[in-house]
Amino acid sequence: PTAWGRAPLQPPSPLLAPCHAFSNNKILVELDESSGVATMKFKSPPVNSLNLDFLTEFCISLEKLENDRACRGVILTSAIPKIFSSGLDITEMCGKSTEHYAEFWRAVQEMWLRMYSSNMVTVAAVNGSSPAGGCLIALTCDYRIMAENPKFSIGLNEAQLGIVAPFWFKDTFVNTVGHRVAERSLQLGSLYPAPDAHRFGLVDELVPEEKLQEKAAAVMAQWLALPDHARQLTKSMMRKAVLDRLVAHREEDIQNFISFISKESIQKSLRTYMEMLKKKK
Amino acid sequence: PTAWGRAPLQPPSPLLAPCHAFSNNKILVELDESSGVATMKFKSPPVNSLNLDFLTEFCISLEKLENDRACRGVILTSAIPKIFSSGLDITEMCGKSTEHYAEFWRAVQEMWLRMYSSNMVTVAAVNGSSPAGGCLIALTCDYRIMAENPKFSIGLNEAQLGIVAPFWFKDTFVNTVGHRVAERSLQLGSLYPAPDAHRFGLVDELVPEEKLQEKAAAVMAQWLALPDHARQLTKSMMRKAVLDRLVAHREEDIQNFISFISKESIQKSLRTYMEMLKKKK
Amino acid sequence: PTAWGRAPLQPPSPLLAPCHAFSNNKILVELDESSGVATMKFKSPPVNSLNLDFLTEFCISLEKLENDRACRGVILTSAIPKIFSSGLDITEMCGKSTEHYAEFWRAVQEMWLRMYSSNMVTVAAVNGSSPAGGCLIALTCDYRIMAENPKFSIGLNEAQLGIVAPFWFKDTFVNTVGHRVAERSLQLGSLYPAPDAHRFGLVDELVPEEKLQEKAAAVMAQWLALPDHARQLTKSMMRKAVLDRLVAHREEDIQNFISFISKESIQKSLRTYMEMLKKKK
Repeated sequence: PTAWGRAPLQPPSPLLAPCHAFSNNKILVELDESSGVATMKFKSPPVNSLNLDFLTEFCISLEKLENDRACRGVILTSAIPKIFSSGLDITEMCGKSTEHYAEFWRAVQEMWLRMYSSNMVTVAAVNGSSPAGGCLIALTCDYRIMAENPKFSIGLNEAQLGIVAPFWFKDTFVNTVGHRVAERSLQLGSLYPAPDAHRFGLVDELVPEEKLQEKAAAVMAQWLALPDHARQLTKSMMRKAVLDRLVAHREEDIQNFISFISKESIQKSLRTYMEMLKKKK
Repeated sequence: PTAWGRAPLQPPSPLLAPCHAFSNNKILVELDESSGVATMKFKSPPVNSLNLDFLTEFCISLEKLENDRACRGVILTSAIPKIFSSGLDITEMCGKSTEHYAEFWRAVQEMWLRMYSSNMVTVAAVNGSSPAGGCLIALTCDYRIMAENPKFSIGLNEAQLGIVAPFWFKDTFVNTVGHRVAERSLQLGSLYPAPDAHRFGLVDELVPEEKLQEKAAAVMAQWLALPDHARQLTKSMMRKAVLDRLVAHREEDIQNFISFISKESIQKSLRTYMEMLKKKK
Repeated sequence: PTAWGRAPLQPPSPLLAPCHAFSNNKILVELDESSGVATMKFKSPPVNSLNLDFLTEFCISLEKLENDRACRGVILTSAIPKIFSSGLDITEMCGKSTEHYAEFWRAVQEMWLRMYSSNMVTVAAVNGSSPAGGCLIALTCDYRIMAENPKFSIGLNEAQLGIVAPFWFKDTFVNTVGHRVAERSLQLGSLYPAPDAHRFGLVDELVPEEKLQEKAAAVMAQWLALPDHARQLTKSMMRKAVLDRLVAHREEDIQNFISFISKESIQKSLRTYMEMLKKKK
């Protein structure tokens, strides 16, 4: 039984399923046609950071699945041990041109817009740490399951780097954990160990790491038991206000990002942070 | 003591109270003039489904009480064992004329508008299962007490039937359980057993079934201890935005309902569901 | 370790710190320049009620600190045993002129606007009961720690006095505890003993009274470990909508207050309440 007290209605049958896969460099996509469930597995060493190439491949893969009538749901997970995704790639935000910043930020927006409005059922199987943009990807899903390892943490920790999560990160976060937890967590840039993340509602469920994929499949089957049309209209009703807000202010948001990230003080913060990361290795 | 840690300030005195009652076919209404508390007891077998007759009688009864200066609060409960209300009557939505759909939907809106904006203190004593529209009635009240029987369930399960809860069902739900629980529950069409409903904030309190009416009277007395005027203005301040939204879009919402429910695919879903219910008997 | 599972990053060093203080009549302000943390200690016997003099001094002190580059955070606490603040001074609302009501209400608004939008980190060390306006002050802070004495209570209990909390009290409350808890608590005028206040999210943490100041300093150090600029922008993003709403309707809100408080029925309620308080002594 799942956390919702209901047995999955359509148990997946991975052994018998006809299956096709396509992969580029950074994400392995597998679609099990018998269940209608795809898996997108991030495999961009060392830490699945969200650079322009990753984001472009992510959006193309997602669009393919969205347009494939055989696909009704997608599970996001990582092929890299201990890390789901480390978030936006800081090298994309450091010492680059204005045009590059604009292109990069548009790709981040695109990823969020596609995921948050996806017609498919989206489940995050968070099998490692997931700060900042990594957390955002999980937040866009319909359901979040995390490995119950307290060494894995998740959160929107932008403030710790001296930067500010944009309003649509914030809106997504508030929709998930409520205003108060979001206000406190965003100001402190909190990264929560898995048990705390579960307690604050940042993830829906914890399971032992070895059961994570099996649980994700079971949850997916439960969601797919619902008629697609009613589920999709309901999802859209819940998320439309927040989606519309970015769509209405998309160019403005890009300009804000560029002018913020171009500040010498911010560039300096990011360089310091990157050097700290290098020393950690 | 109630769940709020405060003893009721005006213990009701049911034995001594002068009392008058009026009843039509589907709802028994009793007003205890000494306490100012009315009880509306649903008695429309087999399952208190909300058909046009029920809704009309409900609104007339409510209006009478609202205009009766002797009445300050109303307790909603059921005279049918094991069921509070089964929600909107599907026969009203199947194979009927456009005019009928419009009349029916207007009556559903009217019930919600009157309950959610009532000047009286409204307490739901949920003594049985309460899916869909039955849950909505409970959600419009100021306080919800449910019999702690895990066989009784409550929730907005419209998605399970292939239909979509309208935006004002959703707004009422979000105001009660928050955005995340609403998003998940509406998409899954979740019906929660009483203990889960309590855990997610869908009901405020659980009591043994035999104590339910007594507890409802105690909670009512606690609410009636507050000055009416300040309480009513506060209630209005909390609910106005959501009420105004339906008032502003009422005709549009009726047209949406008609065009959705008239689709052949939806009609087919509803017929299938009704046949399934018949076989269950 | 704090409730957030993180050790304070900048332990304060109160013994060695150069320190300057300024005090008028009602509030003792001390600034520890080494840590950048000020303390505002309410010392207006008997119950730190928020009269015009107190509010004026409060706003002036706050503005001084806000403009002092040596100050990055402020802890609010009380010098009066068992009471944090008893809230708005009812004598300011009884039998006074329209001009006086306007001046008083503008001062209440000013206090809220300054606190809720403060660039400093604001921590409430609630070392006594804190009804109505006292609770509002705590709600404006970034973090609330309360002495775990169940005899101390906190809440927006305006409805108990027959008056209505204004919309910006309500907005602040909803941002802290969510819509449902706010709706129920404001209608009942609930005062929560410290343990209940903690359970409902009205305060973030409980500590034994003798540890309260030490804990406030530790929490403050944790918040000050974040870069100011990112933290301030994040705070502004979270609170802007609610702040803008009062700014846009400030004069209207003053007129509403005057016309409400000038009603003979309200004046009578307040006089009755004040007499009840006098008899309690």
